[in-house]
Amino acid sequence: MGEVYAVIMAGGRGERFWPLSTDEVPKPFVSLLGEKTLLQQAVARLQPLVPLERILISIGEAQRHVAAEQLPILPPDNFIVEPVGRDTAACLGYCALHLEARSPDCTMLALPADHFVADGAAYRRTIEEGIRSLEGATGIIFGIRPDRPETGYGYIQAGKPAASGRSRPVIRFVEKPDLATAGEYLMSGDYFWNSGIFLWRNAALLALIEEHMPEIYRALCRLRPLIRLPDAAQERLRIFESLPRISIDYGVLEKASGLSMVPAGFNWDDIGNWAALERALPTDARGNVTVGPARLLDASGCITCTDTGVVAAFGVSDLVIVQARGRVLVCSKERAPALKHLVSELTADQK
Amino acid sequence: MGEVYAVIMAGGRGERFWPLSTDEVPKPFVSLLGEKTLLQQAVARLQPLVPLERILISIGEAQRHVAAEQLPILPPDNFIVEPVGRDTAACLGYCALHLEARSPDCTMLALPADHFVADGAAYRRTIEEGIRSLEGATGIIFGIRPDRPETGYGYIQAGKPAASGRSRPVIRFVEKPDLATAGEYLMSGDYFWNSGIFLWRNAALLALIEEHMPEIYRALCRLRPLIRLPDAAQERLRIFESLPRISIDYGVLEKASGLSMVPAGFNWDDIGNWAALERALPTDARGNVTVGPARLLDASGCITCTDTGVVAAFGVSDLVIVQARGRVLVCSKERAPALKHLVSELTADQK
Repeated sequence: MGEVYAVIMAGGRGERFWPLSTDEVPKPFVSLLGEKTLLQQAVARLQPLVPLERILISIGEAQRHVAAEQLPILPPDNFIVEPVGRDTAACLGYCALHLEARSPDCTMLALPADHFVADGAAYRRTIEEGIRSLEGATGIIFGIRPDRPETGYGYIQAGKPAASGRSRPVIRFVEKPDLATAGEYLMSGDYFWNSGIFLWRNAALLALIEEHMPEIYRALCRLRPLIRLPDAAQERLRIFESLPRISIDYGVLEKASGLSMVPAGFNWDDIGNWAALERALPTDARGNVTVGPARLLDASGCITCTDTGVVAAFGVSDLVIVQARGRVLVCSKERAPALKHLVSELTADQK
Repeated sequence: MGEVYAVIMAGGRGERFWPLSTDEVPKPFVSLLGEKTLLQQAVARLQPLVPLERILISIGEAQRHVAAEQLPILPPDNFIVEPVGRDTAACLGYCALHLEARSPDCTMLALPADHFVADGAAYRRTIEEGIRSLEGATGIIFGIRPDRPETGYGYIQAGKPAASGRSRPVIRFVEKPDLATAGEYLMSGDYFWNSGIFLWRNAALLALIEEHMPEIYRALCRLRPLIRLPDAAQERLRIFESLPRISIDYGVLEKASGLSMVPAGFNWDDIGNWAALERALPTDARGNVTVGPARLLDASGCITCTDTGVVAAFGVSDLVIVQARGRVLVCSKERAPALKHLVSELTADQK
């Protein structure tokens, strides 16, 4: 099935972790969990499995500088700059063109750059299990066994495991459920969180796009001869701008047959917003999580983060308190998932 | 009764408005209410009444630099540097020595530097009323008519007004009352807040200190020949360090007879802590007060202050949120008066 290439999707907006993340420095490029940024952690996690020359990073034009700065170990050609953001279907189709030019017979491991995985070895074992299971499947989705009735994720309903190995047939994709339904999913044992980590032969992905999103496929065919042309940036942009904003899940995977799911053997969190930090980082006796210098008195259930001086909290509870890039955010933990409503109201120069 | 000199007490700690105020830059030196600092406002308010060469500023060693920087209009000799902070009895006694050397027959107007007074003209009319009332009184206290049952201030019980003028005899000083007592004071009409603004002949103040605090008076007598000697800093410090920490109110005024009170004809606030800003500044429709750039969404009853970038608040209420000098404070409004408990726990390098 050819060499495995990893495509790390590192574009995106900076709303969910504002003001630490911004459109110029989105979540994958910030150090939320440890000294390395989430993107650097993702590369380091893959490196024992996939050599650096086969790790590609998909970014937006705005992140070109910060990406090269954070990953000097990667060949410059390995940064694939999307002409404009059009969600994951267009993004992965565009990356498939780049891989096809390098190695027509290769396999693509596609993953978001901004996940938190504590155990890199278990992560790599799961990916290897996926590689073994790919033979005979249209593609592999890595599924996370739920440990709470999460309403913020999409789910995958999986069938019984195959006799050999741990992979299961994908029965269906399910959109974010309400709390009662999420509870049923949790109990049933057949529902898994969709991790957004996929594995498929590169040519199979292009075939899936051709079958289920012919509009995108036609655009990819027009892009194919242009991807390396230095003078074609305007034309690439023009074609890309015409593409629908649609995810690979919704546009392709939900309609595809023959997909398999491999359950993840590692702890995973998508760290979707500030409040998620309390799942990924240690808390003090009163349930507070601090990143950077902090001084808390009569404070409980708070999450503080600072990129410079101390953050002090006194007589407060269940708040997210962030000081970053000279700005301050104070948000109830409950409202943290809706932070984009606030950020979108900030004028450009205040962002 | 000689020329009137103003002594503005601008020393003090930086705890109540941390992190905007610090020990190096206490409250009088910060711009909380308008572009001018509270000290600059105090000088500007007095200037039409007292010429600059007769306005003296009492400061600590740590504030020498910031004071000179903020008030280049004052003669350098007009900054009186206390050897070490020993509360207002020692401070005003030491200032009296300096005034005595300049003008033995003068009158001292003593005032804290960190009050908020919106109406400067009314303020000066009240001081002039005090100057007229000083003849025949040991000293004048300016009293503020309460508009709420405040438990954070000391009170003065005043007798009936004299036939001529608005001054009243001081019957007694009362320590900070509980809420029920404060309510009775508010209803009675005979109780006033002690503004901490005093007027007396300079020689009379020294006589009061001699009578009621002989220990301090003896130290002042030893300091008298040293106040201008360039080589006597160590000796001044040694003497000053031995003085008790006691306020002029508690040490002298409560025991003195023949004091008069002049009711203030101006709106006054001592802006004792962050929560007091909502009395002195305009609020938005949801009761928020903002100083510097702010973006509030679903926020009510909050006070925000920033000396740099934007402060954003989302889904929170009744909080004090401050970004200053690279540090952040988030405090429930209710706990703002007790902020010193938090600040005293911060290590020196984090302050």
